Amino acid sequence: MASSSLNTLSNNQFRLASRPFGLPNATNWKQTSEAVGEPLEGGLLVKTLALSLDPAMRGWMNEGKSYIPPVAIGEVMRAGGIGKVIASKNPKFAVGDHVSGSLGVQEYALISQEDLKRNGLFKIDLRAGTLTQWLNVLGMPGMTAYFGLLDVGQPKAGETVLVSGAAGAVGQTVGQLAKIKGCKVVGIAGGPAKCEWVVKELGFDACIDYKSGPNAVKDGMKAHCPNGVDVYFDNVGGEILDTVLTRINRKARIIICGAISQYNNTTPVQGPKNYLSLLVNRARMEGIVVFDYADRYHLAVAEMAGYLKNGRMKSREDVVFGLDTFPDTLTKLFSGENFGKLVLEVAKD
Amino acid sequence: MASSSLNTLSNNQFRLASRPFGLPNATNWKQTSEAVGEPLEGGLLVKTLALSLDPAMRGWMNEGKSYIPPVAIGEVMRAGGIGKVIASKNPKFAVGDHVSGSLGVQEYALISQEDLKRNGLFKIDLRAGTLTQWLNVLGMPGMTAYFGLLDVGQPKAGETVLVSGAAGAVGQTVGQLAKIKGCKVVGIAGGPAKCEWVVKELGFDACIDYKSGPNAVKDGMKAHCPNGVDVYFDNVGGEILDTVLTRINRKARIIICGAISQYNNTTPVQGPKNYLSLLVNRARMEGIVVFDYADRYHLAVAEMAGYLKNGRMKSREDVVFGLDTFPDTLTKLFSGENFGKLVLEVAKD
Repeated sequence: MASSSLNTLSNNQFRLASRPFGLPNATNWKQTSEAVGEPLEGGLLVKTLALSLDPAMRGWMNEGKSYIPPVAIGEVMRAGGIGKVIASKNPKFAVGDHVSGSLGVQEYALISQEDLKRNGLFKIDLRAGTLTQWLNVLGMPGMTAYFGLLDVGQPKAGETVLVSGAAGAVGQTVGQLAKIKGCKVVGIAGGPAKCEWVVKELGFDACIDYKSGPNAVKDGMKAHCPNGVDVYFDNVGGEILDTVLTRINRKARIIICGAISQYNNTTPVQGPKNYLSLLVNRARMEGIVVFDYADRYHLAVAEMAGYLKNGRMKSREDVVFGLDTFPDTLTKLFSGENFGKLVLEVAKD
Repeated sequence: MASSSLNTLSNNQFRLASRPFGLPNATNWKQTSEAVGEPLEGGLLVKTLALSLDPAMRGWMNEGKSYIPPVAIGEVMRAGGIGKVIASKNPKFAVGDHVSGSLGVQEYALISQEDLKRNGLFKIDLRAGTLTQWLNVLGMPGMTAYFGLLDVGQPKAGETVLVSGAAGAVGQTVGQLAKIKGCKVVGIAGGPAKCEWVVKELGFDACIDYKSGPNAVKDGMKAHCPNGVDVYFDNVGGEILDTVLTRINRKARIIICGAISQYNNTTPVQGPKNYLSLLVNRARMEGIVVFDYADRYHLAVAEMAGYLKNGRMKSREDVVFGLDTFPDTLTKLFSGENFGKLVLEVAKD
């Protein structure tokens, strides 16, 4: 695209206007529009096609130290996504290449040479998976599931693996991978539709509907995990984590991937009051941050693309169209409304 | 000793009369006296010399599943101890042998062949350590420190190791072992006397007096753990664990050995509300139960006896004489009154 035409393009963006107290709402965002600039030497201009909406984004909106810095007030909201290169001053990228990386909640992302080094934007091959699969099984959720389950959880064939947020982006892949590795797999999800999908479509051995009653998780574990739980992949925290702690086995591994039940708290996070079950059962609880495994993503992608190809792994994305819907669409994550990996489609290819 | 004289001996015992709500008190115990019996074929009669009083005993008084069954109402209170064989119908033990094992809070323990198999009573060599050291560095607290720190914590030379209950039975050995392994070691203990002893006598690099003010632990860590905490050996739980979680390093290891601050709660255990620090820091929290390492005790004892011999390791026991003092002496553990490993001396050799 010629540089003159780039200057006439307008870039629609969402910036963080204020830090939320509890659930994010429209007042936390400022929608802005600015002219698209030209890439500098070594840089790229990427047109956003689809953005990944993830629970972790809620954390980035908070002030304070975490595994990455918070988004600053006034800054374009951070988001991973898939885009197409529309201008390149970098010999490694050509116009038309599809790329995955930190694009932000905006229609166009001007990527500098420094950004490229820091954020690791990379080309994707649409033969390995669809565009939305590259945000799901082959993207951050899939990598999180892969390394969290296999490296941290180290499940052995025959063990019982329990995963919360089972119909979510990470959970669906955790469960399917655990099945592929020969485990008994039980999910926890909200509502009969998600539970049915997880069992019938994804092949989990069972799924507990945590919304079905006050003792649903406890009773569900008794019924479906009669031999206890060897690996618990936790995406939710809160009461469910505490209940699971009462039924873990000796030497159980609990992977702390997230705690979506706690992200919008206006009170302190609920600590797991049954944590001494770790002592009784000589068990461990360990956190995972997917970025640590960046040098092995390509290996996981190759393995998972194979499973997608031969039908051993399925994926489901919940795609909402339109950058303008961003504030509302994001909140679907926290109400549990999304069914599958939540994707914000920004432009058709 | 002839069997006729055994029958005239009276065995003074403490039995569990009721389960405590909160701190144990005199009403939870029933003192009984019965004639000492004769050992059956394959069994032993052991005269109790000294008993180990440990925080874990509080847990055994509760109903419900733990890593070992609770003490039943009416049963002699479980306690580990050192004794002398005074009658033997087992060829592996001779009258006069000193032994270590589960003797119970009583003057004489009649040990059956089954008990021997189940509880692993073993002969001790008083050349490796004194009788009270066999309940401390060379006993369960020392074994817990050794395997908890080295197997679970896996400290590397140069790392910062923090240990709570630093002047207690387990903590004193954890810190000294970590120093021997080349770590920087900071303790947490209650009161200036314990802190001074830990630094001046045991050679810790620093010790934080958690009783010295409301932000003592936070400020103490800032001052003494400027590079964060790599290994935290937790004997106390509660607020201190939560504070430590705010300063752990990437890939930190937290060994959950106990939670003495929570054992006498009349409200639910306080879960670590900062547990998501495990995620942010890709850290792990793992429980230890010393019994799992029984087949390697002899190796640890040999190593630790060497350190005692060459003066690289010191030990301190807080010895109280008299079985009758048991109910009061036990509560010293929970008030933090004991200074060093708490030992109830029952009889002179």
